[in-house]
Parts: sequence; structure tokens; C-alpha cells
Amino acid sequence: MDCGDRRVNMAKSAAGWWTLDAPFIDHGVDYAFRVDGDGPFPDPRSAWQPQGVHGPSRWVDHARFTWSDAGWQPPPLGSAVIYELHVGTFTPKGTFQSAIERLGELIDLGVTHVELMPVAEFSGNRGWGYDGVDLYAPHHAYGGPEGLKRLVDACHRRGLAVLLDVVYNHLGPAGNYLGRFGPYFTDRYATPWGQAVNFDGPFSDEVRRFFADNARMWLRDYHMDGLRIDAVHAIVDTSAIHFLEHLAAVVKDLETELGRHFVLIAESDLNDPRIVSPSEVGGYGLDAQWNEDFHHSLHAVLTGENDGYYRDFGKLADLAKALSNGLVYDGRYSAHRRRHHGRSAAGLSGHRFVGCLQNHDQVGNRAVGHRTSHLVSQDRLKIGAALVLTAPFVPMLFQGEEWAASTPFLYFTDHQDPELGAAVKAGRQAEFVDFGWKPDQIPDPQEEETFLRSKLDWDELGRAPHDAMYEWHRALIGLRRRFPALRDGRMERTTVDLDEEARWLVMRRGEVSVACNLAEASQWIPCRGTADQTILLATHSAVALENDKIFLPPESLTILKDSKNQG
Amino acid sequence: MDCGDRRVNMAKSAAGWWTLDAPFIDHGVDYAFRVDGDGPFPDPRSAWQPQGVHGPSRWVDHARFTWSDAGWQPPPLGSAVIYELHVGTFTPKGTFQSAIERLGELIDLGVTHVELMPVAEFSGNRGWGYDGVDLYAPHHAYGGPEGLKRLVDACHRRGLAVLLDVVYNHLGPAGNYLGRFGPYFTDRYATPWGQAVNFDGPFSDEVRRFFADNARMWLRDYHMDGLRIDAVHAIVDTSAIHFLEHLAAVVKDLETELGRHFVLIAESDLNDPRIVSPSEVGGYGLDAQWNEDFHHSLHAVLTGENDGYYRDFGKLADLAKALSNGLVYDGRYSAHRRRHHGRSAAGLSGHRFVGCLQNHDQVGNRAVGHRTSHLVSQDRLKIGAALVLTAPFVPMLFQGEEWAASTPFLYFTDHQDPELGAAVKAGRQAEFVDFGWKPDQIPDPQEEETFLRSKLDWDELGRAPHDAMYEWHRALIGLRRRFPALRDGRMERTTVDLDEEARWLVMRRGEVSVACNLAEASQWIPCRGTADQTILLATHSAVALENDKIFLPPESLTILKDSKNQG
Repeated sequence: MDCGDRRVNMAKSAAGWWTLDAPFIDHGVDYAFRVDGDGPFPDPRSAWQPQGVHGPSRWVDHARFTWSDAGWQPPPLGSAVIYELHVGTFTPKGTFQSAIERLGELIDLGVTHVELMPVAEFSGNRGWGYDGVDLYAPHHAYGGPEGLKRLVDACHRRGLAVLLDVVYNHLGPAGNYLGRFGPYFTDRYATPWGQAVNFDGPFSDEVRRFFADNARMWLRDYHMDGLRIDAVHAIVDTSAIHFLEHLAAVVKDLETELGRHFVLIAESDLNDPRIVSPSEVGGYGLDAQWNEDFHHSLHAVLTGENDGYYRDFGKLADLAKALSNGLVYDGRYSAHRRRHHGRSAAGLSGHRFVGCLQNHDQVGNRAVGHRTSHLVSQDRLKIGAALVLTAPFVPMLFQGEEWAASTPFLYFTDHQDPELGAAVKAGRQAEFVDFGWKPDQIPDPQEEETFLRSKLDWDELGRAPHDAMYEWHRALIGLRRRFPALRDGRMERTTVDLDEEARWLVMRRGEVSVACNLAEASQWIPCRGTADQTILLATHSAVALENDKIFLPPESLTILKDSKNQG
Repeated sequence: MDCGDRRVNMAKSAAGWWTLDAPFIDHGVDYAFRVDGDGPFPDPRSAWQPQGVHGPSRWVDHARFTWSDAGWQPPPLGSAVIYELHVGTFTPKGTFQSAIERLGELIDLGVTHVELMPVAEFSGNRGWGYDGVDLYAPHHAYGGPEGLKRLVDACHRRGLAVLLDVVYNHLGPAGNYLGRFGPYFTDRYATPWGQAVNFDGPFSDEVRRFFADNARMWLRDYHMDGLRIDAVHAIVDTSAIHFLEHLAAVVKDLETELGRHFVLIAESDLNDPRIVSPSEVGGYGLDAQWNEDFHHSLHAVLTGENDGYYRDFGKLADLAKALSNGLVYDGRYSAHRRRHHGRSAAGLSGHRFVGCLQNHDQVGNRAVGHRTSHLVSQDRLKIGAALVLTAPFVPMLFQGEEWAASTPFLYFTDHQDPELGAAVKAGRQAEFVDFGWKPDQIPDPQEEETFLRSKLDWDELGRAPHDAMYEWHRALIGLRRRFPALRDGRMERTTVDLDEEARWLVMRRGEVSVACNLAEASQWIPCRGTADQTILLATHSAVALENDKIFLPPESLTILKDSKNQG
């Protein structure tokens, strides 16, 4: 171990661990490891990398932080409204500290859970965070450990829960020294982003512990209320207890130990209900997973796009199936995947799914970072927001979505290695050639400008037309809060009538009905029980009700309530 | 397509399949395919490769065979005694036809199910069969399709069920043209034996169908009663419906369609009860799996071996745990695997496991093909047989085990490609260096002599000491048939008392007790209820019973019955 000018030999224990009695290591002291003569390398469990991924680690005594959130408990997922944000672009300064200044707006909007995109130390000063390599260290450019704790503490003080996005399927390409310390990786499986993690081979107990301890740390030492686990389909583990099931059990144990509620949410491309089913029936026991099918079906209906994976969607019937069954691809043939895909989610609560109109991936993975608001009319955007916020799923917004921010969310990196930077740029530019884009139309991820353009412009919030969009979202969240029927996760109680040709759809959620005209002309739409219904919220005022039908202007949506019931 | 001198172009359908109206193809006609100008290659679904893996395919009309097994139904797995045999070495001639001549001995012994090691066409004339490449074609050297049907028909006429070993995790290295026809393989996963099969990527529907149709063919066209699926741990499939679950559903459908009972038995290294759990609780729904833990714990106790995977075993307590819990590694740390392994099989029936003292792998994967009878005394061998045949698992014998055949079962191949042959030989010889063997001590797998030495010598059967060993097995199977308690799969009803130091063990299976002295000296062993017990069978006659104890000679076993109950 190197520590200042000191170099100290470590001793190998019988169990194979290298250990050291190091009284000189204390809060704020920098250190690093040499392995087999190479290095110095940062500590794989480094709590802080003030000089980035290649620099020394700085010891952090978590007990030094004074929390002010005693007694804090997050609201349950079933009543949550999640807000996904990227620390670096959420505010002009792009730090944990500056994020605190905008919590008031989120609370005003009705957000209950903030979800931070990955904060673990990654190469350079700018990035989405999915190429983190020091998984225990909050990024130095965001404000390090102290900054993150302050942000979480501030959220809790204001009644906001905090979820953290963690990446356990691979490590980033730069500064990834983990493999120098042990058999953390394997060639038995491949991931699109780097070596697969050894979750099931020799010594995988320790590898699993490395990741499970990481989850424990965020929940225990940073008071996170839950984790969003990136791309679990790339966590290949054939052992009898899949790492995700193990992780869920570890987190459940910690929940009991600490007496606080935690949730685990997976990003999954598998359409496999096993991930969110209880372990008693063979599931992994996670709380929820992102509902890609809902996003894709809604996006395709609103935009008419049919490129890439959107070719599997586009019908109102797909959207209706998502709303009442959770998954569209529940064993159905996927033309995009060129195989049958998924299995039925029957019996699962809608609260096992997070539904959104956009997220960092769906915006940022587009050629020029277009938000939905850049693709469709404001009316359609309002329809999309309303369907997300009245659906049986846990709704999620992506930063700036609530006011239809004009800023894009581009793909940006800051790799210090010029070769890697050039490769990332070239890869990014090549990615969209098949979709008709020329390489020079694609923003260079390595350019700082690409990052700066992606920052939210909070001044928009008070200006037309952004203010109206913000109010629309606020009103929708208000309705969701007011009517338990809108938070009801029982998908079997969500029924949808539609006419594919005439382009209308009526979703019933208990006493609340959501009537939606996607056609470019006004029309009368069948809607049972209008005689006893009152309008709660509408995109347009020129709405008329007659017996069992409703008149809707073009591209409009109206939310009605059965007036015989109490709301 | 090539057919004799004829070369006919095929047409590509809209769905991407190449098709041909070929009235000239009929029973017995040879043909082959050219792909993109290369070939000719055999049909991937060839029913017969009379000239081996590189030759043309011969069309077989399965309807031409006249079956005489109308109304046949196999006995249930719970009352089965399985006999694993390798067609090439089971008889001097090594054919399906010559195997028929020995069925009488199997019936006399009490066997109910014959299990054939893989018969699908593999490279050359000799081999275990796990490197098959024409998965639909019974090996030409064994007698092809007609020969196999005759064998199955003969078994059924004599009341014997037939299981077939199939390999769906990889294809062999020689004659493997499958990848020329479509995306059957993937680099996303790796297997120790060759490219992994594409069970979950693009076009995997068709790949899954290729293997599932293969299973259907053996059951439907060859009247197999079930399949043993090789090394399912190497079938990596992360899709929402694992191929094994899909396969089990397909076979269940066929069972209903044809009105015959089928079973699927997995070879699994995963210790994952999911494989044999019903799909209703998240399982794959297979009927049973080989119980490696039972084999290893029994083998290690009898032989004292502690090399390789046997280092994880050796205690009587391990054997006792296997007998009453199914799995020894049910989440316990495995020193051999260097990680925790498995999960509890609680709630499963013992009939979900096949238990054996030896099988082709455990014998043949030893340096010089030693059977258990080459490693331990006859008394210990008898103890081993008795524990297999009184355990709650479905018992299985390996050909010749019933008379402690003196012939080894060596690893043999017949690759025609000299480079491949040399590589296989070198690989085989290198494999045992770490276990103290010199390369020239390892029989050359490519030498015909290695194959010939592995053939059973049936003349041994009538000779001492083989005759006595045969009678011992026959008597044990007779007991298992006579006492339902011995066929009871409820592991929770199997209790085991033992003394690790004194080397004794008493297993109770309802009214039947199995008392076993593994020490080299005689001893009195605690055995509840001896006053009311009578001896059913014993390795030695010098047994004495007193109140709640039994006197057993060295290395002996006695089976007792509670005389208050009816047997």
C-alpha cells in the first residue's frame, strides 16, 4: 500500500486476502494499492476518488457525517412519482449541492422519489455514469461522498425519497482496475459493453459480496431509499440462486436490520416476470422493473415512429395491452428481436412496473438527444403525460419533461485517453448511419459543448409554453394523488376500449375514465356512463358529453369521474 | 439439393426457408444440400447417415416401420430401475440388434428402464456419443433407424421402457455443418466442448424448434419413453421461458396428443431444484435430474477418494444428508467450486432424482476407466449397491455393474481427421497429469483397442465372483419391488443415524432399516426396534440382533424389516 511517502507491505491471510494494520489511514487520508509490482491502483472499494479514476483513494469515515433525517421513511412505491435526474445536467453547476436548490420545484410538482443516474466514479468530469469503475465512490466532479450525503439528507428533510441507479453488469473501459485484484470478470459470458462479471464461477462468493456490499453501502451509509439496477439482462448467472435474488435477500435483511423501507427496481430487457415475482414462487423478489413495453407502445402511438425496436409497436391495441396486462410481449413474436419474447405478467401488480413517456435512454440514445417534446405536438405530449400519470404503473418523469424542456439530452463522455475518446465518438457516429444520419450530424460525445447543451435551462420553467406544460403535469399528479383508483395497481381492473382506425382510446380506472382522441379531427367517442360523469381535467375545453359518448377535439384527452362515487 | 446425379435448385420462401418440391425423394433415397456454393452437406435433420457424418443423408419414411407395441405404457419413474447402456460396448457386436439378445438378463435382474447413451450420428464408428452432429440420425454403426426401432420395439414387447440420452448443449467438433444452415450457435456464451447453442438470440425460435422437434421425433417416431438431457448447465438461456421449460411443455403436449407417458431427466451440475420443480412455482417442469451429490458422497465414503470434486465429500454425514435432503450442496460452501453452491431441494420428492453408484461419466472419466468394483472390496461394493437400491431416489445401474464386470469403460473416439484425433488424445492424456498419471499410462482414445477393451464380457456373468454380485443386485431390486417403503420418494421419511468415527450408518425407510458397518472391525450398532425386526437381506451371515442394537461384521450391511408391519 502507498500512503503519502509511505509504502507498506501487506500480508496475505490464510483465506487469500491481503491485509494490513494501518493506523495511519484515517478520514481524508489518500492511499493506493500496488499489485504484483504494478500500480499504484485505487482501492476497489474506494469511497472517494478526488483525482479521478486513476488517482489515489481517499479514506472516508462515514460516521463523521451528521444526518438530520432521523425517523425518515419513504412513501411506498404504489403511491410514488419518480423523477429521474442526471446530476451533471440537472443544474448549471451540475453538482449534488446545486441539485438541492431545485428540490422545491420537484416537491411543488408532486414528485415523491428522486432517482439519480449513476454517480459512481467514472472516467473524466462528464458522463452519463454507466461506465463507472469505482463503484463505491460518488463522483468527484459532483461533490464526492459529502456532497451526495447532503443531497440525500436535504431530500429526506423535504420528504423526498432518493433512488440511485447502480450498474452491476459491467465496469467502464477506463480506470477499470478491478480485474487486477481478483477474478471479478469472466469470459464465459459476453456483454455489449465490456467483460461480463463473474457471478457464478470460482470465487464468485466474493464477487457477489463486492456488489451486494455496494448496494448495502448506498442504503446504509448514504441513506438511499432504493436502487435502480441497470440492464439486469446482462447479469448472466446460472447458479441456483441468481445474483439478483441474492441481492434482494441481502437488501431485505438490511431493511429489517435498519428498520427502513428499501426498494430494488430493475431495468430489464427480458420481459421475464420472474424478476419481480416473490422468491416463494421461483422469482428473484425485486420490487419493480422498468416497463419498456409500455414506453415503446406509448411512444410509437404518439410519434408514429417504427424504426428499430419501435417496429414492434405502433398499434393502440399494443398500448391497451400494456395498460391492462403490463407486458405487450408476453410470449408474442417480436419482429425486431426475430424471436418470440417474454412471458405473461398475469397476477402481478402494476406497481411491479415503472412506466414513463421518456427516460435518459429513450432520449439520450436518439441521434441528437430529442425529447418527446421535440417529436410531437404539445397536445400529443399532454396525452402522453396523462397516460403515464393515470396508468396502473409507478410513473416516472425524466428531468425537464415536466416543462417540455427545449434542451436535448445528448450522449456525452470525457474520456482522457484520446484513443478511447476517438473510438467512442466513432462508435456513436456509426450507430445512426442505418437510420439515415450522417456522422457529422451526430454531436461529438467528447466535446464539452455536447455536455453543456444537455443542461436544463431552468429559466424556461416560468415561460410559455413551458409553464403550461408544467401545470399540466402538476395537475395530473394532483389527480393521481387525489383518486386512489388512479394509484390502483390491479391491472385487471384497468380496461381499455379503442378503435384502431378512428384513433381513439378510453381507459377506465375504477371511477376514473381517460378518454383520448388521437385523430386529427374531432369526433364523438363511445364512453359508457357519461350521463353520470364529470370532467376532472382536459387538454381542451371544447368537450361535450352525451349519453354514453363524448365529443373530443383533435389530439385531445379528457379525464372524467363517475359522479355517483366520491373522489 | 444433390440427389444422385440430380442437382436441383431450391427456392427461398418469404419467411426465409429454402424449400423444394422433391417427389424423387422417397424412403431410402440419398440426398444432400449445397449452401452458398459450398457442400454438399448432410441434411441437418437427416434421419440416417449411412456413410457417416460427412456423407449424404438417406430419407427415411418412419411410417414404414411396423410396431408391435400397441397399448404400451411405461411404468412410472417412482417404481423404475434404470439401466444405462452404451450400444457399442454393451455386446460384442455393439449394435442395436445384438443388444436385443441381452434384454432377458436385464429383465431377470429387475430392470424397468433401459437408458441408451447418445445414438445420434457422431464422427467415426466408435464413440460415447456426446459429440453427435446429426441429431436426428441413429448412428450408422449401431444399425441406423431401423435397428433402433427394432430395439425399442423389442424392449416394449418385453415390458422394458427405453430412455434416450440426448445432447442439446453443443454439437461435436467433426461433421458439424449446422452453423452453415443458420444462426444455430452464439458467441454470447461459451461451453467447455464447443460453441454454445443460440437458445435466446435472434432466430432462436427456429433453433429451439430444431431441438424440441428432435425430442418429439425420438418420442413419436422411435417410441422412446423419455429422454435424458445431457449437461443442462451448459444450456445458457436468459429468455423469459428457458429452453428446458419450453421443452418440458412441448413434451407434455406430445404426451397428451399420443396418450403415452413420457419423462424428461436432466443431467445438471447446478444443484438447482428449479429444473425439476413444476412451472407453476417457477420451475422448468422436468421430471427428474441425476443426483451427483448422492453419487459423490457415496463414492467418497466407499473409496476414501478426495481428489477433484470428491474433496467436497467423504463424510458419512454428507451421504446421510443426500439421502434425507436430496442435495448435499444446498447453499453450502464448496471447496472444489470455490464458492457457495446450490439451493435446498426441500419439498421435492426423491423421485425427482436419479441415484447411482456409477455411470458412464464416473467410470469413463477416470484415467483408466475404473469401475467402482476396481476400487473397493466386494463387500463395500455390495454396500454401495444396497444404498442405491434402497434410497428414496430412482436407482440407476451402469452396464455390467450388476455383475461387477472386470472390463473398464474407457474414453474412446474414432475421429477421421488425424489432427482432431491427435488433439483429443493429447487433451485426454494431459487431463490426468495433475492426478499423478503419466501420459503413456492413459489409453489412447483413438485406438480401436481402447474401444474393444471397454466391451462387456457377458461370459463373466455366470462365473464367480460375478454371479454372486449379480444375485446381490437381483435380490436388492426384488426387495425394492416387494416393499413400497423402499420406493417411497418422500425424503423427509428417510432418516439416517450415523457415527462418523465408528463408521456406521443406519437408514430407516418406513418399515425397512438398512444397517451398515463401514469399519474394518465388527461392532455393535444402535438400531432401534431390533426386537421386532427380521433380517431381509445381508452381505454377511454373522449378524446378531439384541434390544435396539445390531452386531455387524466388518464392511457389512444388513437390511431389516419391522415384523409388526406387513411387507
